[in-house]
Amino acid sequence: MTEPSVSGRSELPVRDDLRGKTPYGAPQIADVIQLNVNENPYPPPPALLADLQRALGEPGLALNRYPDRDAVQLRTSLAWYLSDRTGVALSMEQLWAANGSNEVLQQVLQAFGGPGRVALGFEPSYSMHPILAAGTGTQWVGVPRAADFTLSAEAAVAAVQEHRPDVVFVTTPNNPTGTVTPLDVVAAVCEVAPGMVVVDEAYAEFASGPSATTLLAEHPRLIVSRTMSKAFALAGARVGYLAASADVVDALRLVRLPYHLSAITQVVARIALARMTELLETVEWVKRQRDRMVTEIGQLGLTVVPTDANFLLFGPFDEPALVWQALLDRGVLVRDVSSGAGLAGWLRVNAGTPAETTAFLSALEEVVKR
Amino acid sequence: MTEPSVSGRSELPVRDDLRGKTPYGAPQIADVIQLNVNENPYPPPPALLADLQRALGEPGLALNRYPDRDAVQLRTSLAWYLSDRTGVALSMEQLWAANGSNEVLQQVLQAFGGPGRVALGFEPSYSMHPILAAGTGTQWVGVPRAADFTLSAEAAVAAVQEHRPDVVFVTTPNNPTGTVTPLDVVAAVCEVAPGMVVVDEAYAEFASGPSATTLLAEHPRLIVSRTMSKAFALAGARVGYLAASADVVDALRLVRLPYHLSAITQVVARIALARMTELLETVEWVKRQRDRMVTEIGQLGLTVVPTDANFLLFGPFDEPALVWQALLDRGVLVRDVSSGAGLAGWLRVNAGTPAETTAFLSALEEVVKR
Repeated sequence: MTEPSVSGRSELPVRDDLRGKTPYGAPQIADVIQLNVNENPYPPPPALLADLQRALGEPGLALNRYPDRDAVQLRTSLAWYLSDRTGVALSMEQLWAANGSNEVLQQVLQAFGGPGRVALGFEPSYSMHPILAAGTGTQWVGVPRAADFTLSAEAAVAAVQEHRPDVVFVTTPNNPTGTVTPLDVVAAVCEVAPGMVVVDEAYAEFASGPSATTLLAEHPRLIVSRTMSKAFALAGARVGYLAASADVVDALRLVRLPYHLSAITQVVARIALARMTELLETVEWVKRQRDRMVTEIGQLGLTVVPTDANFLLFGPFDEPALVWQALLDRGVLVRDVSSGAGLAGWLRVNAGTPAETTAFLSALEEVVKR
Repeated sequence: MTEPSVSGRSELPVRDDLRGKTPYGAPQIADVIQLNVNENPYPPPPALLADLQRALGEPGLALNRYPDRDAVQLRTSLAWYLSDRTGVALSMEQLWAANGSNEVLQQVLQAFGGPGRVALGFEPSYSMHPILAAGTGTQWVGVPRAADFTLSAEAAVAAVQEHRPDVVFVTTPNNPTGTVTPLDVVAAVCEVAPGMVVVDEAYAEFASGPSATTLLAEHPRLIVSRTMSKAFALAGARVGYLAASADVVDALRLVRLPYHLSAITQVVARIALARMTELLETVEWVKRQRDRMVTEIGQLGLTVVPTDANFLLFGPFDEPALVWQALLDRGVLVRDVSSGAGLAGWLRVNAGTPAETTAFLSALEEVVKR
């Protein structure tokens, strides 16, 4: 579908801050190897789909009825998973879920940000954070990371003390750079932040370090957000979640749309969590291809930014858009992030299956050596 | 689950306008006859679930991939349905869908309302409209309906001319009163409204009059919102949608969260639309029980507000809360709306299956005659 016609729209009484904007989103191109949106390349196993098919046939599902507004069973499963995974005892009352972590973070900004309030992030980072801030009327402050994309405690603390934000975002591993922010930096931010601190751990299962959930007990204004899109390979099912104090979760219940999470979404997520061992095997497979990419891209004489996610930044290129197009011409779609602040020259690619990864590496070799 | 502890939450830096509030929503009570949230009492037929089970097994679903951000296939099906149903030729570009009509309306307010802007509705009406306004920072103006809950063109036009709202809501049939607003009133509002006019037709399939889609060609700032929760009996699947000009839809794409609608939600909705004839049979069954309720409640000496929806207001009662409790004690859950502005003394009930309707009518007779 075509992008909006700004001329047509401009006759409508759309909000001034939306005029001239285009919708967020990477190009959707079919029939190519898609390594551009950090998806897990492995579809859910047939056993999961069979569970789901069975669940849909159960009379208890009753699709004519509104779903459980509080998604208690799903949040119980998420608490169990995250406790098991991170070694921190978490209860259902500390978990919250929504349609993707975008909606989770939007709810956080609706409750703790909004007009007259400020959210701060360390850029380059996930480009939806400032978009969600704008959508909720929250002023956005983007603080640059170091040239190597790391974030030190000193720099983070200084930025928080200068801007006194109501909400701070720390993304680790960071998207689109793959950079890990050590827990002591997160803890230092929590110590000085006057408002909420959101640690976006969308890619945590691919990383080796501990989760910020280990800091929850000490920091009542800390929020750790996650997603089932990546490690659980369920981008199509739209399940994001967070862990925080039960009081934070109660506050989110004031801004969530009633019945925001469909009965089917709740069931899909619960079934996936019950099969976590099987699903999370893909994490190791993906990491193996990521490590292979790091090695082989380096052998081409390019730089790879140190990564602990399922994707990496590679470059730098004088003309990244041309490299992006040349890869696409060879059937491989990567993400051109080079127009982002601090990202000039870089492209992002996520690890695929062994065959997809081989196709990407071959295409890149051709492009680099031509 | 218990309601939020305001004391605990108040230590958090939650927005001032949220302090002391409680989450929206009717009580969720199990093991009773639920006639309180205007659901369709008929679960989806086994054939629909079988279609869905089959669709989940198709490789094209690829749950590890993000869904179609623009939901083109679903919007095509919705355009086809609404064109067929209302006799107005509508294209995919004029349709938009989200997780329930609440999310659709939230997006409308994000694009056309927001801080510094005003939304107006005719009350009593759907209580989510002012909540969605508050959540998007839009000022809310509630204009009272006539004592019999109707809305005249004169009164509507006068209110719009006085308040000059950026967004006007007209709900028809109106929730919680069941009242229809004639199309000439909607047209009169469109003529004078300086901004967008949203006609909330959540219950339109139960009504006998024409849809406001018939006014779309003349009024480029008109939006007609609908849901699959009621007539399609899919409250658990969370599918709301709207029809408007393609420019309005383009504007909504600027505020929607990317990938807001899961791949499974899109499939469920498409399958239901393909089985519309079968699903919409339930509308006639429900209307028959509604009409029976109107007659039999009247025979008990109570007043029923004229309704064209799947629910009705009955009363008035001196102590509606006691009647609500007495019905619940007899195993029937209705909605106590009597604390709403203009609703003192009234209770709301939706039509159920014949057996559920009989249970309600018997319980009500007992309560009234005791």
